[in-house]
This record gives sequence, structure tokens and C-alpha cells, in this order.
Amino acid sequence: MLRVTNTYTGRKEPFEPLEDGKVKMYVCGPTVYGLMHLGNARPAVVFDAFRRYLEYKGYKVTMVQNFTDIDDKIINAANAAGVDFKRYADRFIAEYWIDAHLLGVRAANFHPRTTDYVPEIIDIIQRLIAKGHAYESGGDVYFDVRSFPKYGALSHRKIDEMLSGVRVDPTEHKRFPLDFALWKTAKPDEPSWESPWGRGRPGWHIECSAMSMSLLGESFDIHAGGNDLVFPHHENEKAQSEALTGKPFARYWMHNGMLRFSGEKMAKSVGNIFNVREALTRFGKDTIRLFLLSKHYTSPVDLSEEFLQESSRAARRVRDSLERARELGVAEKFVKADAWVHEMESRFQEALDDDFNTPMAVSLIFELVSELNSALDKGDEERAAQAYDLVVREIGPVLGLFDLPEKSTEEAGENLFSGVMEILLDVRNKLRSEKRYEITDRIRKRLEEMGIKLKDTPQGTKFTLDHHG
Amino acid sequence: MLRVTNTYTGRKEPFEPLEDGKVKMYVCGPTVYGLMHLGNARPAVVFDAFRRYLEYKGYKVTMVQNFTDIDDKIINAANAAGVDFKRYADRFIAEYWIDAHLLGVRAANFHPRTTDYVPEIIDIIQRLIAKGHAYESGGDVYFDVRSFPKYGALSHRKIDEMLSGVRVDPTEHKRFPLDFALWKTAKPDEPSWESPWGRGRPGWHIECSAMSMSLLGESFDIHAGGNDLVFPHHENEKAQSEALTGKPFARYWMHNGMLRFSGEKMAKSVGNIFNVREALTRFGKDTIRLFLLSKHYTSPVDLSEEFLQESSRAARRVRDSLERARELGVAEKFVKADAWVHEMESRFQEALDDDFNTPMAVSLIFELVSELNSALDKGDEERAAQAYDLVVREIGPVLGLFDLPEKSTEEAGENLFSGVMEILLDVRNKLRSEKRYEITDRIRKRLEEMGIKLKDTPQGTKFTLDHHG
Repeated sequence: MLRVTNTYTGRKEPFEPLEDGKVKMYVCGPTVYGLMHLGNARPAVVFDAFRRYLEYKGYKVTMVQNFTDIDDKIINAANAAGVDFKRYADRFIAEYWIDAHLLGVRAANFHPRTTDYVPEIIDIIQRLIAKGHAYESGGDVYFDVRSFPKYGALSHRKIDEMLSGVRVDPTEHKRFPLDFALWKTAKPDEPSWESPWGRGRPGWHIECSAMSMSLLGESFDIHAGGNDLVFPHHENEKAQSEALTGKPFARYWMHNGMLRFSGEKMAKSVGNIFNVREALTRFGKDTIRLFLLSKHYTSPVDLSEEFLQESSRAARRVRDSLERARELGVAEKFVKADAWVHEMESRFQEALDDDFNTPMAVSLIFELVSELNSALDKGDEERAAQAYDLVVREIGPVLGLFDLPEKSTEEAGENLFSGVMEILLDVRNKLRSEKRYEITDRIRKRLEEMGIKLKDTPQGTKFTLDHHG
Repeated sequence: MLRVTNTYTGRKEPFEPLEDGKVKMYVCGPTVYGLMHLGNARPAVVFDAFRRYLEYKGYKVTMVQNFTDIDDKIINAANAAGVDFKRYADRFIAEYWIDAHLLGVRAANFHPRTTDYVPEIIDIIQRLIAKGHAYESGGDVYFDVRSFPKYGALSHRKIDEMLSGVRVDPTEHKRFPLDFALWKTAKPDEPSWESPWGRGRPGWHIECSAMSMSLLGESFDIHAGGNDLVFPHHENEKAQSEALTGKPFARYWMHNGMLRFSGEKMAKSVGNIFNVREALTRFGKDTIRLFLLSKHYTSPVDLSEEFLQESSRAARRVRDSLERARELGVAEKFVKADAWVHEMESRFQEALDDDFNTPMAVSLIFELVSELNSALDKGDEERAAQAYDLVVREIGPVLGLFDLPEKSTEEAGENLFSGVMEILLDVRNKLRSEKRYEITDRIRKRLEEMGIKLKDTPQGTKFTLDHHG
């Protein structure tokens, strides 16, 4: 049975959906004001894989992931660029889809945009006011935190603690410092919508209540996101939703840990790989997903060039073995599920049933690849086909790993390149033995201009590729 | 206003969804007993792009595409391979996702599997029997075609014509030759489910009624698929659904034309490119989508090596221009939507509003790329950025064209390869001028072994790559 860590209870709990066989989940999506970085990529990859595992287990899953397409950061960035906020958001939604595709993150069932849900948001706010949980003040509307006694229960904070950390913004008109804006009155030059409180726009937290409840119902199974969102975002979302309906909002709150930058030395190189597009171009999908899934989702992940290189080597080893199996015709075989296959499947399910322990599932892939190699060495085609099938068609598709016949750009076209390189180096060696240094030095120089460095060793000439050029 | 060709009325009609601003559509998906071929890829690509266009127009779209994971072909193929039918279907669902991903086909909102809807199917059949539209006979259940007077209205066929074409299967127990099976009694060694009529399995047509009505409601907007499905599949689906609910089933029936093989000569080469994975590996996503979207969706498309090569050259020209724009920093600019941009947007919308005329939208891309090139030549950065933006972030994402920074394997890694190749050919020319033919001939031979052919011309040495090796 699947167990997950529930932030609300603080415990690892058995997962029991509200409706038998069906799972409804909401994942907080990106605020679209820039390109995706590896910090955003983590929840996208982790909860995409988690959803696929739920489907693998036979659940019918409805997953919603929103785009926040209106907020201060977007408005400021769009103003700085001199374009309309909607055009600006559209652009980064288009960019999101590119990165999601390259990352192997499948589209959720629904990707609502905040600005498409303004009528629903206004409706919720009106009902909260009518119920005495919200109040209008100077064109703004605030949620009355003191009207909801369970406030703080999700993030396990006491009102006193929260109060000591709060900063009061003098432009707001709150009755209590922890109250938060549901609706903000329009500032000059800001996008705004008509409302019962004059022109304005939604506060940040209310959108997720509107989109999740519209698409999943008042109570649903899972609410997920990064653990930086627990307070205040999810605490507020839960308060306003439950104050509105009188019912429990999400049953399980799942939060992924943050991406950390460790060590000063790598600050510069990290700057480049932090951008998902750049990281993907260099390393390819499998490496990036392996990097993100090799740690438990609740733990932090340290971003470093070394760890990415290590993931890249590991991905390469797996792909080389799979490629070897394909060349030997193993991939076409249909395999029978014997006791060994069932045992491997059980171990895979045990790993992911235990709070989605992807590091354990990843290590099972490596184990299966070892088994594949040794079966190929021994000529045991049946076992080889079973191991191949488990990696490529069962575990891989759940984790989004090794399921595509992809190569990173570092690998693509490498056969042609390395073949021609070999000929060139042989010719160069021949010419060196004839002491034709004017040609051999010229070859070295032109290769260096391309970022290829030669090193003449007693074992022959080696070359290294400069990826950072 | 959007107009679409409705097979049911036989006319091009204004598109008006049942619920304002929302579109519910069902697309008949693949029967998963083999790898996707270009014939299956066409509806996948066409209706994926159509859905994206609806979203571009601001509709909230719910799109369902099923997997038929139980049928005679799957059972026979699984038996031949000696594996369980479910394992067999699982494999080709995994393969579908790979091809869909490589084709740039986004996941629909829901991808139901037939075998997950057996309770819903049984429920519909029971209700049809209770209403006098179906009858049990020897463990089978048949739909009573004569009980539904509008039978034939979708495919525009008269009962007499249909009767003259029908073949009677002596193992069936129909009252009337056009009646069709809703439930089939279990044969030995076939997968089967408990039902009120004994163990058996669903007929082909009923699954789509069960899945579409469960996920979209009894009446929805669009039902789509290949035009080979109009009769009997969609005719039967419509009859059983409307007989059940007494309400109109789908409002618009959209059907794509078939992929044709023309000419005998190409039969062999077509065999390879007909397989989507192979076609994608050689040509990349943009070429395949360009090939499929360059003809109107209702027309047939002729599959030929020449047409694919032509699409590949066209895709290459577009990508080269976009790459040039990126190198000049044009891609980062934020553009303002001036009159020219609005005019281009209008022309794009007019093209797709007119029965989803993708050939016209594709030719607009080529026009915009010409504009991009000439703006770059003239140093008009603003116009260049506008043209780039229209192609990459507005039209491209709707058609799934040129939106990804992809390269086909023919292009990938080409820089390194072509750089080293140039050095090698220069060295070879130097050695030829010295008449060192033992080395230059050896170079030629080793390149030939790799599929690279050299041709010494007065303009220098050219080479061709053998892709068919």
C-alpha cells in the first residue's frame, strides 16, 4: 500500500483517496515571468512521475497544474520590457511547454490560467464576505484570519510566532497583521478587472482555491508543491477554502524539498546549468531527471557540476547497455512475467509505495542493467529481454527515464564525428612519423579553435572536448 | 468565426460549442497492437493541433483520446507472442507515449483504456436492453439497428445499400444483418469479464460511447477520427448513444483523410518511413508535422520519399533562419504588437478559422520567415523580432512546429562533424597535391565504410552522406 508524507499531519500515512480508484491532485505551477530553472523543474518532474506511478497502480488520476499569469513580478517585468502583461505571460507559457517537453514532463489533465478564473475568484470572495470570513477595506478585500481558528495548522505555526515575523505594509488596510489580500484595488498602469469592490485584481492565494475547486471539487486528495509554499501560500489557501465550504480542502499535502547551491566555487558554472534549457541542451533529459530523482523528493538536492556529471555518466552507462541489447535484437522479444520478473516488479512497487522513494527505484534500474549486461554476456536472451523490458517499458515510463530513444547533444551525431576524428588522428600520426609538423601543428590548432584539445600519449593521441566553449 | 466541416450535415458550419467558452471533444485513439505508423500519426497530429488552436482562441478544452486495449487483433498478436493480452497492450501504450512525445503531440486531458470501463459498458448495455434497443442472443448482446430510425444518417447511407454490402458471420446470432455486437460471449483462451450474460467481452463500438459519455457527458461538441471510421464505427457509436439517452450525441463529426501510397516504385522505401519512429529518427518532428499539416486535414495525403525530403528541406530552411535570428540576439527581444503584427495574427486566424486550413497557416510561416530574413538583412531588429515571435511563440506552438530547439539526427552534432570533416578534407587535398595517393585513397575508403562518399570536383571535394545504410 502506498504511503506518503503528509505535511498537514507531519506523518507518513497510508494513501486512501476519497473516491475508490480515483485520485484528484493539484500541483502549484509556475509564475510565468522567466525561463524555467532547475528549482522549478524539480516539482514538475517529481509530481509528474508521482502521477504516472498512481496511474501505474491503476488509479484514474485527474491532475491540475496552474499557470500564475498575473502577479507583481509579471507586471513589473512586462512594464520593464514595455509589453502588455498578457503577451509577456503568453511568451513564458510557450517557453514552459518547450522545457516541459524536453524534460519529458507530460501535460497534466488541466493547466488553468489565473486570468481565466477571475469570475470564479470574485464569486468565492463574495461568499467569504457573506460568511463573515472576509472584509472590504479601501477597495481591497482581506481574509479575516482570526475568523478561522485552525489557521496555522498546516505549517504547524502558532499565531504569536507568525505575528512576530510579519511586516506591515502601510499601503494596506488590514484589521489584523496576518490577514491577507483576496482582492487588490487597481493601481495606475496595472491590469485590472471589474468587481463589486471596483476595478482590481486577485491576490495571490485565492487563485489556487478557485482553480482547484472548480476543476476538482471542494474536497480532493492531494495538494502538492515546493516546501517554500507551505507558509503562507498553502496555509492561506487552506484557510480560505475551508472557511468557504466548511469541508476539508485537500486531504494530503505533499511538498518537495528545495534545490540548494553548495560551495562558492561553483557559483559561476551553476549560473548556466541552473537554466533548464541550457542544462537539457548539455546533458539531455535522462541526466536531468536522474539528477532530480536520485534524491528523495522531501530532501534538499545540492546543485553541482560534479553531481550532474556523475548523473550524466550513470545515464550514459544505462543507455549504452540498452543500445547493446537493441543491437542484439533483445528489444523486440515479448517476455513472459516469471517469478523473477514479479519479484523485480514487487521491489519497484515497494520502493515507490514507501513515500515515493525514487532513489531506491533508480538503484533498481542500475541493478537491472547489471543483470541485463551479464545476461547478454552469457547469451541468456530470455533474461536479457526481461531486464530490458522492466527498465524500458515498466520502470522507465513511470520515472520518465530511459523511455525515449534520446541522446544528449553530447552524444548525438557522435558516431559520425568520432569516426571522422579517428581517421584524422591516424593521418596526423602518419604525418608526425614523417615529421611533417607544419601540417600536424595546423591540425592541432584548427581543432583547438573548435574546442577539441589533443594530447599525445604513449598509448596514442587522445582528445578532450571543451563543453564550456 | 471558426467553421468546420461536419460529416453529419455534410457542410462547413459555424462552430458553436454547447457551453459558452468550453469545448468537449473526443478523438478515436489507437488500437494498441503495434508501433505507430504515419497513418495513425495523422489524426494524432491534426487533432492535437486543432485542440491547441481552440485553446489559442480562448476556449477551455477537454479532450479525450482512448486506447483500445482489447480487440481481436490484440488478442491474436498476444497469443502469437505467447504473452498475456494486457502485458501486450501495455507495451504498445508505452511505445505510443514515446512516439507521441517525439511527434510533439501533447497528452490529451484524458486517455481512458477500454478495459478500465467494463462496468460502464455493461451498464449501458443493460439500459439499452431495458429500452428495447438491444437483445441478448446466445450469450452475445446485439444492438437492434431497426429500433433506431436515424441509422445511416452520419455516413449518409441507406439501409438497402448497407444490407447489400454486409457479410453474415454464421457464429453470430443476429436478428437482422446490420445489427452489431455490444457484448461477445467468451471464447476459450480469450480474456473475459463477468456480465449479466455470462463471461464475455465488449464489442468494438460500445467502448467509445462509454468512455466519451463518462468523461464528457451525454452530449458533447466534437467527435473526431479518421474517415475510415465513419462507417460502421461512428455510425454505430452514434446510434447506440442516442438510442440510450434520447439526446444528440456529438454535435460536430470531424474526420481526417487517409494517408495514401502512390506508385509502386516507392513501396519498399515507404515500408521504412511508414513507421513513425523510423521517420522521426531520420527527419525529426518538424518535418513529419510539416508533411502532415501541409495538406488540408480532410484531404488524402500521399506518402512519398520525395514529399518527405521536400518537407525536410523546407523545415531546414525555416530552422536555419530562426537559428540566424537567435545568433543575432533577436529571440530575446520583447516585441510590441503593432498593426503589422495584428495583420499577421488576423491572417493566421482567418486561415485556421476556415475549417482549420493548416496549409494556409504553413505558407504564412514561410512568408514570415522570408520577412525575418529580409529584416535581418536590412538590420531591422524590431521587425525581425516580431516575425521571429510570430513563428516561434504564436503560430509554431499552435501547429507544434518550430517551437522546440530540436534538430533531426541528420543535423544534430553536425557542427563538430562538419568541422572535423573540413580539416580532414583540407589535409587530404594537401596530400593529393603531393600525390600521396596511398594515404588519400585510404581516407576515401575509410569514409566510404562509414557511409560518406567523396566526390572531387573542380570546386573542391564534396561529400554525401548515405542515410539509408
